[in-house]
Amino acid sequence: MRKFTIVGLGLIGGSMALALKGFKDFKIVGCDISEETLSFANEHGVTDEVTSDVNAAIRDADVVMLGMDPMGIVNFLHEHKDEFKKGALVTDVSGVKEAIVKAAECLPDGVDFIGCHPMAGTEFSGVQNAFKEMFEGTHLIITPKDGNTEEHLSLMEELGIYIGSQDVIRTDPREHDRLLAYTSQMMHILALSICDDDELFKCKGYEGSSFRGATRVAALDVPLWTQLFSLNLPALTEFLDNLISHLQSYREELGKGDPASLAAKIKISADRKRRVDLPGPDLLNDRYSKPEA
Amino acid sequence: MRKFTIVGLGLIGGSMALALKGFKDFKIVGCDISEETLSFANEHGVTDEVTSDVNAAIRDADVVMLGMDPMGIVNFLHEHKDEFKKGALVTDVSGVKEAIVKAAECLPDGVDFIGCHPMAGTEFSGVQNAFKEMFEGTHLIITPKDGNTEEHLSLMEELGIYIGSQDVIRTDPREHDRLLAYTSQMMHILALSICDDDELFKCKGYEGSSFRGATRVAALDVPLWTQLFSLNLPALTEFLDNLISHLQSYREELGKGDPASLAAKIKISADRKRRVDLPGPDLLNDRYSKPEA
Repeated sequence: MRKFTIVGLGLIGGSMALALKGFKDFKIVGCDISEETLSFANEHGVTDEVTSDVNAAIRDADVVMLGMDPMGIVNFLHEHKDEFKKGALVTDVSGVKEAIVKAAECLPDGVDFIGCHPMAGTEFSGVQNAFKEMFEGTHLIITPKDGNTEEHLSLMEELGIYIGSQDVIRTDPREHDRLLAYTSQMMHILALSICDDDELFKCKGYEGSSFRGATRVAALDVPLWTQLFSLNLPALTEFLDNLISHLQSYREELGKGDPASLAAKIKISADRKRRVDLPGPDLLNDRYSKPEA
Repeated sequence: MRKFTIVGLGLIGGSMALALKGFKDFKIVGCDISEETLSFANEHGVTDEVTSDVNAAIRDADVVMLGMDPMGIVNFLHEHKDEFKKGALVTDVSGVKEAIVKAAECLPDGVDFIGCHPMAGTEFSGVQNAFKEMFEGTHLIITPKDGNTEEHLSLMEELGIYIGSQDVIRTDPREHDRLLAYTSQMMHILALSICDDDELFKCKGYEGSSFRGATRVAALDVPLWTQLFSLNLPALTEFLDNLISHLQSYREELGKGDPASLAAKIKISADRKRRVDLPGPDLLNDRYSKPEA
């Protein structure tokens, strides 16, 4: 039986452990510095084994997945680089990739690293909020590099399928970080900014799904997101500048008070959204009964 | 048997018809100018009866619910004000209330009007996309005024319960419009603006639920939303100015490159979100199996 160690049993590491139960011939071992986390994981069978002994967890592991926050991963790699087994695959779950992949250059020859970002999450954190269906229908992004073994690349593909990802996308760390600045980090800044309005506490009873959808992620994990924003500043500020400029353009259009001109502008944006064809969160399709078309 | 006529069988009117099936002793009659809509409604049993004859639909109706877009409702009220039955209740489903309630002042004595806004919808339109569970767990907002009969106010409360609303909230039209500028119309301007970014068509495969949640409503009904924005311009532009200013504040903070200061700012916004305790769309809670806490 091979050993698959997950270091950092938080929301994503914990969900990954639950989703990976029974994956190939792997025994899933959870490692964390928090005794509370380990005892929760143990009591609820989140992993096959738990340990707080890092060296024991990684020295004979065939795969090590690092589930900490980005700076935690960077520091871990530097601190434990010589403790991995020769031939092991090391991977991670972080929402930024350039900083992680750069840190992983410290690994010795014979220890393979493939950056990984399962594009999933909720506004909650911790193993207590983990669930095995976390990754169903989501994207698993990996950042292969020269020297990765075919066996390890295949393993990441199989892992993606096993946990229910809709696809496994290969890209490079810089492109990943640029796109994620737009699709993820900016959405979080936006959600925070919406909640900064004085009207926030008056709006209960008047909020619909558009408001709940745009603000959901504002209740975020502050240290984690401070790192994610800080490690991707140039791309994030570029997209934020774009967004502010597009909002100002709508502000000016509204100021004109010309419905025909406003409608023409709205139509361009709405058509773009239809053309990109990214469905909203699947609130309705599976759950509700429409009259049959 | 009493007669409940819904004029305008679109997404909301159609869903209301489906949700109201069997409500008290009412026969639900659907009226629309589109033959295609009426034949779909007829074939799928959306209402008990359908007709394109407006006068026949409203002259002996005990309740008339106007389901058109806001200007359609305003025009309808002026055009048909003398055709309602004495003692009838007229109501509507519009997302702006001041313009509608003002227009309803043209109704003769003895015809009661209660403005209504079921806070529900999807990014789709038309009776083909209607479904009976549309209003489950949503807010039904009504704007009572002097002279409304107790019987009619009770009827609106019972209607809200019947269609599955989590509550029936009473407010005045101006307050409604102000709050909705923030919680709904601004979220739509935001979704449109996000989709104006050049990166939109590159981001497939890199979008998570935060992106899908914030942009879902961008594929909106252009004429409808042009009206909703146009009929609520002062409040909408005020909130949009606030949002731009809050985004600029984050932009400046990010520009400083000081993680501790950034974390402090994020914490304030995230705490506000936690304090207001408005859950996100219910993506996960009911559907997924967490380890039991």
